[in-house]
Amino acid sequence: MSVALVVQKFGGTSVADPERMRNVADHVARCRRRGDSVVLVISAMGKETDELLRMAERVSSTRPGREMDMLITAGERKAVALLCMALADLGVAAHSFTGSQAGFLTDTNHRNARILEVNPDRIADAIEEGIVPVVAGSQGVSTERDVTFLGRGGSDTTAVALAKALDADMCELYTDVSGVFTSDPRIVTAATKISSITFDELLEMTATGCPKPAMRSVEVAHSHDVALHIRSAFTWETGTLVTNTEQDMEQPIIRAVTHDLSESKVTVAKVPDTPGLAATLFRMLADESIDVDMIVQNTSDAGVTDISFTVPSDQLSAVTAVLEDDAIKQLGAESIRTDDSIGRVSVVGAGMKSNPGVAATVFEVLAAHDINIQMISTSAIRISCVIDAQQCEDAVQLLHTAMGLDG
Amino acid sequence: MSVALVVQKFGGTSVADPERMRNVADHVARCRRRGDSVVLVISAMGKETDELLRMAERVSSTRPGREMDMLITAGERKAVALLCMALADLGVAAHSFTGSQAGFLTDTNHRNARILEVNPDRIADAIEEGIVPVVAGSQGVSTERDVTFLGRGGSDTTAVALAKALDADMCELYTDVSGVFTSDPRIVTAATKISSITFDELLEMTATGCPKPAMRSVEVAHSHDVALHIRSAFTWETGTLVTNTEQDMEQPIIRAVTHDLSESKVTVAKVPDTPGLAATLFRMLADESIDVDMIVQNTSDAGVTDISFTVPSDQLSAVTAVLEDDAIKQLGAESIRTDDSIGRVSVVGAGMKSNPGVAATVFEVLAAHDINIQMISTSAIRISCVIDAQQCEDAVQLLHTAMGLDG
Repeated sequence: MSVALVVQKFGGTSVADPERMRNVADHVARCRRRGDSVVLVISAMGKETDELLRMAERVSSTRPGREMDMLITAGERKAVALLCMALADLGVAAHSFTGSQAGFLTDTNHRNARILEVNPDRIADAIEEGIVPVVAGSQGVSTERDVTFLGRGGSDTTAVALAKALDADMCELYTDVSGVFTSDPRIVTAATKISSITFDELLEMTATGCPKPAMRSVEVAHSHDVALHIRSAFTWETGTLVTNTEQDMEQPIIRAVTHDLSESKVTVAKVPDTPGLAATLFRMLADESIDVDMIVQNTSDAGVTDISFTVPSDQLSAVTAVLEDDAIKQLGAESIRTDDSIGRVSVVGAGMKSNPGVAATVFEVLAAHDINIQMISTSAIRISCVIDAQQCEDAVQLLHTAMGLDG
Repeated sequence: MSVALVVQKFGGTSVADPERMRNVADHVARCRRRGDSVVLVISAMGKETDELLRMAERVSSTRPGREMDMLITAGERKAVALLCMALADLGVAAHSFTGSQAGFLTDTNHRNARILEVNPDRIADAIEEGIVPVVAGSQGVSTERDVTFLGRGGSDTTAVALAKALDADMCELYTDVSGVFTSDPRIVTAATKISSITFDELLEMTATGCPKPAMRSVEVAHSHDVALHIRSAFTWETGTLVTNTEQDMEQPIIRAVTHDLSESKVTVAKVPDTPGLAATLFRMLADESIDVDMIVQNTSDAGVTDISFTVPSDQLSAVTAVLEDDAIKQLGAESIRTDDSIGRVSVVGAGMKSNPGVAATVFEVLAAHDINIQMISTSAIRISCVIDAQQCEDAVQLLHTAMGLDG
């Protein structure tokens, strides 16, 4: 068996308690015995980050970003130290490293810092000495020498960036699911695990509701060509490989059916169809850091048009606050309508590019079951439809079957 | 009122919960309004260090020192971040600093590292900018660039070392007692708070059972001439000043009566009185890191002698393990006797130096009340007697009265 350098990232549920920590240590010891070099990236244990956030709320209503980052990064530090101790019990030499010690230089954007550079000299030295480096996820040191946090889900990004910096053979993201599925197995009982998938497909899937891994880490892995393996820290079975190359010449047209119930729809009704209209509207929203997703504008009818878009439901009140103050005045809209009981169902697959009939099939399946489509948006490898939230689960099941994905 | 630079250290009970954190922030805000520059040193909240130790025990039986230090120092990091947030709520600009960021360079002796150097450039810059630096206590970075912990009670040492490095006017150690007392107020109802005391006296007191502050910090303050103020973070009243100079020409002969019930007595009986005997014995104990305190050897009688010493009771089994294996053989002793029901009562005061009658008075008081003295040890400013543990509280009360300390 060939010797490899593997970066293994373990999420919060994988190290939630002492027993799970020891399970992870067992797995790492087994990888070492097989001859692989292993670098670990660890998240804070279980719900610790949430607990630290709650503690901060009890102490202060101000909570400056610099101090929040100092606070939250303590969680990952505890986790890496404890995991090194669990490894020591098994005779595996291991050293913990903070983000700073691991060479993660970031910008000064606290709570959600971006990685500027990774200088993993100390990590490389440890590997050279046969020591397993255990790196605190989602953290770094800023250009101002302050501790920074990369944001929730940032440990995936740490792992991918480290795999790139070390030129590792593989980046394994261990989580509580056993891979990427053709649909949510809780809804579609016939959903099956995908053995390999392209980055483009996975990006479309995570963007449309597939919960793991974190979008940002997939983007970084994609742009730096870091091979990912998404797998389970509970069953340890082989999971889903993600690469830039399409593994299978005869790959299926459709890869997965995803859904998302976390968004709401906003319609700005009957605005005069003048140049710069959309620019004005979405600049207003961007200035309030509102995360707009799907945007649909119909062709104008008698000089007026409707613009619809989706936003995370928890930002809906912020949207109406902005638009009811300004949009009706500035844009001359007739009204603002919102709907928080929508669902989005998406069909994703690289094979769609050369199979123009897929969209028609999707619409036919939904129509045949009286599911009304409110908005449509497509990319080269994805079709998304906004429908009534009540009908979302049915739509996912019907499309999974119709697209030939039932296992 | 003169403007001063003050280092304020707050112990675990002073920042045990959000309310206490806000109380500390209030106090700091008030000091700032008076015009003082303030640097804070903070311990981990409440029992957090104990909780982290318990978690480590649940994960691992090995627990390498490097990883224990990474784990434990997370507690202070959380505390400094939260206190900065509490200060932000009051409009006080504050920045948290880890031991490393504050410039604490230590040796590589994990769990109990020694400070080699303090380079407080970032702290001085923050003061200059009107920002309150909030420094994580009891931590630093080693010459190997690893995180180190200075040991339990190390936050006092951090505060004193920082006060020295910044040439601060005062180092205030805030704790859950309101100062140093003439005796333990739980035992001696007439005990009074001492308004000022010399380092020599305080060192003798902490060495003989006075619980606060940590011995090591007093030694560092003494050798670097850092003025201390030991005071309460609960009542905020003026506490006890500690300096190298005797404040009062007419100071009382006796300062305090202390006691200690945490030690046990060991007697190595009837060893041949040959040169190097004590050296051999105490080298054996030092090799096992046993912390020997009082040592008494009587003059020899017919070529054999008894050596008695005290050790912390929790090390007693380690002592007997060493000595029963080796001492009887190597030293030719007749037997090893131990007694874990002893107490030590000490009378401390710089005025004793020029008042030779104090020792006699102590012995007379104890004899008059049928309290048998098992061991005696003296320094220029202290007399200690080992007696039966059952009689220790009575002895403390009797001596406090006899020495004229009753308030």
